[in-house]
Amino acid sequence: MGGEGKTRDSKVGTRKKTFPEVQAERLEQAQRTVLINCPAKISEKKFLKYLSHHGKINSHYFYESYGTYAVVEFSEKDSIASLQDVTRTPGVEEECAVPFKSRLFTLTLKNPSTQAADQAPVHCHKQSTILVSDLVQKLCSADSVSNQLYTLMDEYQLTEENTKLRFLVCSLIQEIACAYFPECTVKPFGSSVNTFGKLGCDLDMFLDLDEIGRSPTRAKTGPFYMEYQMKRVPSQRIASQRILSVIGDCIDNFGPGCVGVQKILNARCPLVRFSHQPTGFQCDLTTNNRVAMRSSELLYIYGSLDSRVRALVFSVRCWARVHGITSTIPGPWITNFSLTMMALFFLQKRTPPIIPTLDQLKDLADAEDKHVVEGHDCTFASNLNKIKPTENTETLDVLLSDFFEYFGNFAFKKNSINIRKGKEQNKPEPSPLYIQNPFEQALNISKNVNQSQLDRFVALARECAWILQQEDKGNSSLSNSQPWGLAALLLPSVASNCVKGKKRKRVQASERIKSLLDSLKINNANSLVNNGGKRTFSSQTR
Amino acid sequence: MGGEGKTRDSKVGTRKKTFPEVQAERLEQAQRTVLINCPAKISEKKFLKYLSHHGKINSHYFYESYGTYAVVEFSEKDSIASLQDVTRTPGVEEECAVPFKSRLFTLTLKNPSTQAADQAPVHCHKQSTILVSDLVQKLCSADSVSNQLYTLMDEYQLTEENTKLRFLVCSLIQEIACAYFPECTVKPFGSSVNTFGKLGCDLDMFLDLDEIGRSPTRAKTGPFYMEYQMKRVPSQRIASQRILSVIGDCIDNFGPGCVGVQKILNARCPLVRFSHQPTGFQCDLTTNNRVAMRSSELLYIYGSLDSRVRALVFSVRCWARVHGITSTIPGPWITNFSLTMMALFFLQKRTPPIIPTLDQLKDLADAEDKHVVEGHDCTFASNLNKIKPTENTETLDVLLSDFFEYFGNFAFKKNSINIRKGKEQNKPEPSPLYIQNPFEQALNISKNVNQSQLDRFVALARECAWILQQEDKGNSSLSNSQPWGLAALLLPSVASNCVKGKKRKRVQASERIKSLLDSLKINNANSLVNNGGKRTFSSQTR
Repeated sequence: MGGEGKTRDSKVGTRKKTFPEVQAERLEQAQRTVLINCPAKISEKKFLKYLSHHGKINSHYFYESYGTYAVVEFSEKDSIASLQDVTRTPGVEEECAVPFKSRLFTLTLKNPSTQAADQAPVHCHKQSTILVSDLVQKLCSADSVSNQLYTLMDEYQLTEENTKLRFLVCSLIQEIACAYFPECTVKPFGSSVNTFGKLGCDLDMFLDLDEIGRSPTRAKTGPFYMEYQMKRVPSQRIASQRILSVIGDCIDNFGPGCVGVQKILNARCPLVRFSHQPTGFQCDLTTNNRVAMRSSELLYIYGSLDSRVRALVFSVRCWARVHGITSTIPGPWITNFSLTMMALFFLQKRTPPIIPTLDQLKDLADAEDKHVVEGHDCTFASNLNKIKPTENTETLDVLLSDFFEYFGNFAFKKNSINIRKGKEQNKPEPSPLYIQNPFEQALNISKNVNQSQLDRFVALARECAWILQQEDKGNSSLSNSQPWGLAALLLPSVASNCVKGKKRKRVQASERIKSLLDSLKINNANSLVNNGGKRTFSSQTR
Repeated sequence: MGGEGKTRDSKVGTRKKTFPEVQAERLEQAQRTVLINCPAKISEKKFLKYLSHHGKINSHYFYESYGTYAVVEFSEKDSIASLQDVTRTPGVEEECAVPFKSRLFTLTLKNPSTQAADQAPVHCHKQSTILVSDLVQKLCSADSVSNQLYTLMDEYQLTEENTKLRFLVCSLIQEIACAYFPECTVKPFGSSVNTFGKLGCDLDMFLDLDEIGRSPTRAKTGPFYMEYQMKRVPSQRIASQRILSVIGDCIDNFGPGCVGVQKILNARCPLVRFSHQPTGFQCDLTTNNRVAMRSSELLYIYGSLDSRVRALVFSVRCWARVHGITSTIPGPWITNFSLTMMALFFLQKRTPPIIPTLDQLKDLADAEDKHVVEGHDCTFASNLNKIKPTENTETLDVLLSDFFEYFGNFAFKKNSINIRKGKEQNKPEPSPLYIQNPFEQALNISKNVNQSQLDRFVALARECAWILQQEDKGNSSLSNSQPWGLAALLLPSVASNCVKGKKRKRVQASERIKSLLDSLKINNANSLVNNGGKRTFSSQTR
């Protein structure tokens, strides 16, 4: 059981790709990829044969979202032009089409009646997490708490296919922005790429215009300077707002499958929000948001260093979401980002530490790692191979239990959490919860959290620490029908025990739990309906 | 004198280019052309040498408009990419640039003090008409009324350079629209290309999206149809509005030199209006406006058939503008288009006719000339060489005088004007002036004209017919200091004679005329100031 963490970390020591390398590779891959709406009952063989006329196919898969879609990655970019050459624009039957041509296609059968007659539907890849009730059952069949955490992570984390799809959507949006800014790139950031993203999480996109400003290799000769005439605006912020506004209109009016476009241009970081129907992703497009990009890379590094990091964070986030500690609605709740910082801080505090502090990562940085964004020091080593693996061999059983105990007893009144230093510091101001922003160091990322939400978190953490300790002490002969370990922590009863201030007792749980599982199923079904059936309850957590 | 018209028509009989041929040729030329803002004091030789590094230059010229500009046409399109490769984006000194790269550049000197020291300013090409007072003086030195009309036309008509510049602006706007609709073209229409345009007239642009809908050569094999997923809207009009709206925003936010963008999307023909500062053009961008395109071609044909057509129309329009019969402000005034129709109608009515009727042009049409636009028959022969030259040899002296006499006595109360038939017809409704729209035949293009404006036109026409007839009868020994012929018709006194209902007398005109000329100079200077010095008074006439 204790060796599980080590097994998963087997990649440590071999060459690991840096975050920018992974991004570049996936973006290039996405540009060779098309998205095709097709009938559910289609011969996969004929479909591939048909597309192969345009070039070699590297990979493909199907999924469902308002119909059946195929993601097809060609080996060469030219194949897409070849495919587009034989693609027609929709006829003007009842409606009129805005003739913007993208890599989003609709494939129809020439003879639907005969072609689909005895065809089985294609196999579709899952794009969302399982229901919490199903998760609880699945966790119960694991053989240790450690493996429960890994099971949860396996169920929740982004799949290879879903990650590809996210890069594809960025690439489609990039094509819209590229129309005017050919050197621009649209990159995913945040949970889609920081290794902590869950199936169904929002897709944060960063419109990177920085390459455009790069001066060309100047002509050495000649008595003149040549410069583009360009629109001038008073500030970078206004430039961002204008660009996003127009790109937002383009997405709204031309972007196939893009619906519900909202421009939120007066936010601290102006953004355009929209739904990408063919993939079901909720997208936020921002620009000039480089700190967030560094933040994603930092999390990527922490998430890649040791498999226990992600397993713990996924589990804590799921636990928090189930008990309403986090919420998708803005308000006084603790955010996923704050929870992640707390988990990272906790792992930095172990003896020996499981992950290095940000200052240690900065010490490992070389010249090319230096990043100062708008005066904020965002420097740290990108190269994972430089970072010495931890010698800590604690199991996730211990870590989970200690996490709850640690924060159940943390001196929030006095201390702040700071992953840069990896140690508690005196709070500079009296917010109930103070977690220093790792890059914009004067900011508290959990300024929004009020005392009652913090109290709830502390009470739940204590309750869970107690449950795990009880299990550890005695009841090791648990049957699969009784939720135990992590599964037990996900039951609504945990919260009600806290609220009611009940004496902690664990007797005859089986009946109660059975009815709770049933009620969970109902709750999940309801929330599915509320979300238009598109995303599961749990997938809304960010 | 009488042979003048014939001399100018010397091209009749040789192969003349069709309107679409001319358009295509000029659009292609424009795509090889760049616009460069440069210091007025620049060595033309060094400038050309510098640009020649990027490829062979076909032609170039300079003009002034908010600074000095050079229009440079390369021989190959690739030269532009080469030039763009060494062009930098503006630095972020005090303002921030929206990094949209176009073919509009700014060239600066590396060492302004030494490089410009003893350099004379480059020769600039005129881009606007002369002042009316200068025109009147120039007309007086012509040797016949016919040649006065040709002189006026030579002064007012679009120059080769100005026409190139108009196509260049279309090409720059096309580049903005092409970003999303790669197969689209932006073509000038109306006065910029119908051979009746005056220096300084507005630039009407047509965003042609029709090529996009063309189906590709379908793949013969395979059991599937492939179609683009595209945004759907309920009607072509809404599609046009949305596309223009977004392109308008792009022009507003990204288009260098494009200012004062107004979206007029609820008009019968939705449009985006803006000023293109580097050229000084007032631009109207429309889409889905195919009748107007056919209308431009029809005028092009009439204007190209016989040089007397354009000379008469330019002169009548100038006369009307000077006397306030036409106006740039919407209202009850006769439009330039209506005046042109009247002149064409008059020329169709000569014996033998100088130009054919629209129905005759339709009879000459072959299969490829067939155009039905939204149910309106817009068919006529495009090939000028099919049209038999007129045998009418009347001079412009006679035609101008008869034009005024003809419309001074026209039965406007009873009859309508119809260039399709080339004869008067009973008015279908009681508008004071009824000129049938040649294509949308149920419409009266002069519905806006009220009785008092028509009366003014008739009175002025009579006055002018009388003046020309008096001159013809006696005073042939005119000195150049006394405005005569067409020049006399452009004097404000003509209108005041009408208004006062004075007995027609022509005595001792010389003193009076001298002071009038002086007052004209002052008026023109004032109107120059009112227009920001950009366009002359007379150049505002459309």
